This record gives sequence, structure tokens and C-alpha cells, in this order.
Amino acid sequence: MSPSTGGTADLSRFSINQMTVKQLSLPELVDGCLELGIPGVGLWRAPVQEYGVEATAKLLRDAGLAVTTLCRGGFFTAIGPAERAEALADNRRAIDEAATLGTDTLVLVSGGLPAGSKDLRGARERIADALTELGPYAEKNGVRLAIEPLHPMYASDRCVVSTLTQALDLAERFPAHQVGVAVDTYHIWWDDNAPAQIARAGAEGRIHTFQLADWTTPLPEGVLNGRGQIGDGSIDMREWRGYVEAAGYTGPIEVELFNDTLWARDGRELLAETAARFVEHAA
Amino acid sequence: MSPSTGGTADLSRFSINQMTVKQLSLPELVDGCLELGIPGVGLWRAPVQEYGVEATAKLLRDAGLAVTTLCRGGFFTAIGPAERAEALADNRRAIDEAATLGTDTLVLVSGGLPAGSKDLRGARERIADALTELGPYAEKNGVRLAIEPLHPMYASDRCVVSTLTQALDLAERFPAHQVGVAVDTYHIWWDDNAPAQIARAGAEGRIHTFQLADWTTPLPEGVLNGRGQIGDGSIDMREWRGYVEAAGYTGPIEVELFNDTLWARDGRELLAETAARFVEHAA
Repeated sequence: MSPSTGGTADLSRFSINQMTVKQLSLPELVDGCLELGIPGVGLWRAPVQEYGVEATAKLLRDAGLAVTTLCRGGFFTAIGPAERAEALADNRRAIDEAATLGTDTLVLVSGGLPAGSKDLRGARERIADALTELGPYAEKNGVRLAIEPLHPMYASDRCVVSTLTQALDLAERFPAHQVGVAVDTYHIWWDDNAPAQIARAGAEGRIHTFQLADWTTPLPEGVLNGRGQIGDGSIDMREWRGYVEAAGYTGPIEVELFNDTLWARDGRELLAETAARFVEHAA
Repeated sequence: MSPSTGGTADLSRFSINQMTVKQLSLPELVDGCLELGIPGVGLWRAPVQEYGVEATAKLLRDAGLAVTTLCRGGFFTAIGPAERAEALADNRRAIDEAATLGTDTLVLVSGGLPAGSKDLRGARERIADALTELGPYAEKNGVRLAIEPLHPMYASDRCVVSTLTQALDLAERFPAHQVGVAVDTYHIWWDDNAPAQIARAGAEGRIHTFQLADWTTPLPEGVLNGRGQIGDGSIDMREWRGYVEAAGYTGPIEVELFNDTLWARDGRELLAETAARFVEHAA
């Protein structure tokens, strides 16, 4: 593997989330990180399972790359007992995978409303039920669960937890080393309560990951794959980095983009651009 | 004009927002309302200007229909003095039009971030500056201004006021008969603070209009024209009607949809369906 080629000081906190450059295979991603001096990666379960969990762990370990998070567990809002049991079993597997990969953080996306339901409050409560079972299992495996509030535009179909306040209200029922939150600029940048909630999360030791994506419009159909490259949108990255650091966070900063336009480009070039944008706008 | 054909009791609080059935001309809309027993309409400036403001006022008055709101003023977030002066002048014209139409409520959509700006806080403050000038002018003309918080997915490009809390924090700097809020289910249904903020708005006499639209997914590209027909989505309309009524609101309930699929249908049929859905889900 080639040694780092400079810029490592500015990239010392940077982690590239695998989804940002999903056109790269895991070996290509590792090579790119080594070449650019990127010290960490956030991984996703599906491509890791495809490559093999043990094989991925070895690949990353041999390269000296940190695994900053695994995405993602969650989807706890089903009502039926069979579906709920299956969700819990799948989340235990996700915790096992996180432990094998050597990351201490599993990101949770809570799930949307069950078909036909209009009961956001009930769905949020079922998340707490699931965490009661999963928190101790995660702790036993050295993994922390990070509830990720998603933007309110996902409330019905992906994640009934829409704000940091709601995420922390759930998390605080559990010890911080079991359950914390994911702070992602894309989801919270509009929320004038978020800075105070970041301070609350920091004071409780619950900022388990910090992720960046920029807000660009127009949003694409389905609003999933429009997360903007850092610097292209409306979010002041240094302002939000300032909030999490004032709250005591010293961990990795992941850039996690889902963007059809970026995915259509050369993956290595996109990786280099993303690292450069991190340095320009957030380092 | 034909007399009402039943259902008027259940429709006594109903108002159809003109945008919902924008494929209908103003005379067609009036005929449809009379036929169905719909007592009120919410109007939009562009089609009213096209028909003529005085002519519209006469048409509605002769038909005995109430004008429940005029949409919309606002767009107060520009930074340049010339743009700001033009926005104020245009809002004075909107207030004049509201007075001519005989409605007491002008809905305001505040505007998004100026090009290149990332300063949500500054943009929100410029709204207050504009209201300081417009509030007294509105009062003199017998018109109340209703700040409408739009869903956070519009924060960058349409409306930096994303929650009822923010809207009320702005409104409370002014007398309630000058400035209040628009409560629209589509924009606030995900927000667990909204019920308490509706109570706050009611206690202050600031619920100036109550509008319904349902939340359906997937959202269309640009996320503008995907407001769902009442009953098709995730929002419990009776729950939200309960909140505004518990807060003392006894005024009209407008259904305001923007939806390309609905606009492609026959306007009279859509009007009848919307009235029926109101009765089924919200009356």
C-alpha cells in the first residue's frame, strides 16, 4: 500500500462514509484512503456482508484504517410481534458485525410509521422498547447505539425521530455508553433548538458520531439521494463543528452523502474531492 | 345559481383554497361552491389579479361566499435595500387586495435564504424588520398577517420559518390583531412541540387560519406539489382539529393542496371529492 501523501494533519479527524463513494469496492476504498491520508471509514452493512464481515475487518485492520461507524440498525416501529422479533434479531446481528469490524458505534435509523398508522407517538415509544432489549446486548459487545434523528421530511416512511431533542429524550432513558445520538448536519441544520441539544448531548456524553452533508435544492423525487457535497449548499459546516466541539466532542467527522449525481462520477476523483472539501469547509 | 344540495351542516366550517382546484376558473369555482354548499374560499393573488381584484370581490360577494384568506405575502429575507423596498411595496399591495376582497387574513410565506447565504438566523430577523413596517399598515386596512411556518424541507429556498415556535416567537413582538400564524397540518404534523404551540397561539389570539393537507410519500421532485388529499396520508386530521379547537379556534378550516396528480383531474369532481373527504376525516 502506498504511504500517505500529505494533508494528513487537516484530515486527521476526517472519515469517509462508504455510501458517499459507493461506486468504489472495499479494496478500492481502502487504497484511496491510504493514498489520500484518510484515516477512517464509516461502513454500511450490505456491502460489508457482500465482501464478508471478517474479510472486511481484516482488510481495514491490515491497512491501519479506523472503522468509525457501522450503518445501520434500527427499524423498530413495526407493531406485529413477529416483525418486532425479527427486527431485534437483525439488530443483534448488526451489533455483532460492528464488534467484528472493531467499531464502537452502530448508527440506528428508527423506522417510519407502519402501513396505515398515523400514530407518531406510539411509534416513537416502540423504539424505546427495542432499545431496552438491545442496549445491554450492545454494551456486552463494546458497541454504542447512536439514534440518528432524520430530517422531518422522512418522518412517515423512514424515521419517526425527527429532532435531536426527540433522539435525546429517547436516549436518556439508557446509560450513555449504551445509547447516544448521531449528529448529522443534513438532518438538523434548520432547527434552532439543535445547538442547545448538541450541548445537552455533549454534557451527557451522548455524541456518538458527527456526520456532515450539505443541503442543496431542488430535492430529488423521493428526497433520498440529494445530500449535497460539502460546500455546495446552505449549511455552515464550521458553525456546526463548533457546536459539537464546544460540547466536548473530539471524535471522527464523517462525510456521508447520498447523491445520484456524485455516484455517477469516478469514485476515486469523488473521494479526493470530498477530502478536499472537508479541508476547505470543515477542517 | 343553484341552491345548496345538502351537506351544508358538515361543511359549515369548510373553505376550499383556490390552489386545490386551480384548474377551475373563478366563476367555475364559485358555481361549484354554491352547488356543493361550500361557504368559503381561500384565494391566491395571481389568479385574482388575472380576473381582476374588484371583479373577484364582486363575484364572491354576489354569491354570498366568504373569502377566508388571501395567499400570499411575504418573501422578506432579501438583503439589498432595493429588493427589500420592493418586497414591502408588494406586501402593501397584497394587504390592499385582501381588504378589497373582504378577507381579514393575509398569509405570509417568509422567504428562503438569499443566494449564497447560510445565515438562517439573520434571515429570520429580517422578517421581523418587515413586519414592523407592515403590521400597522395591515391594521389600518382591517387585515391580519398570518406567518405560515413551512415544513423544514423548505427552509433554504422558500421559508426560513420552519416551526410554529419560530413563527410565534416572531409574531409575539406585535399585537395579535396585526400578526398571528397560519396553522397548516402539512407543515407541522411531525413536530411534537406543535400541539403546545397551538395552545400558545390560541391563548394569544394568534391562530389566524387553520389549513389542512395530508402527508403522502414519495415526495415529488422539488417537493412542492405532493400535498396529499385529506385521508390519503399519515396525518390524523381530527387530532389536529382538536388541538386548534381546544385552543379556542372557531374559524374556517381551509383545505389547501398542491398536487400535480389532483390538478390533472376534472376540477369539479376534485372539488366534490375534497368536500367529501373533509366531511369524512375532519368534520
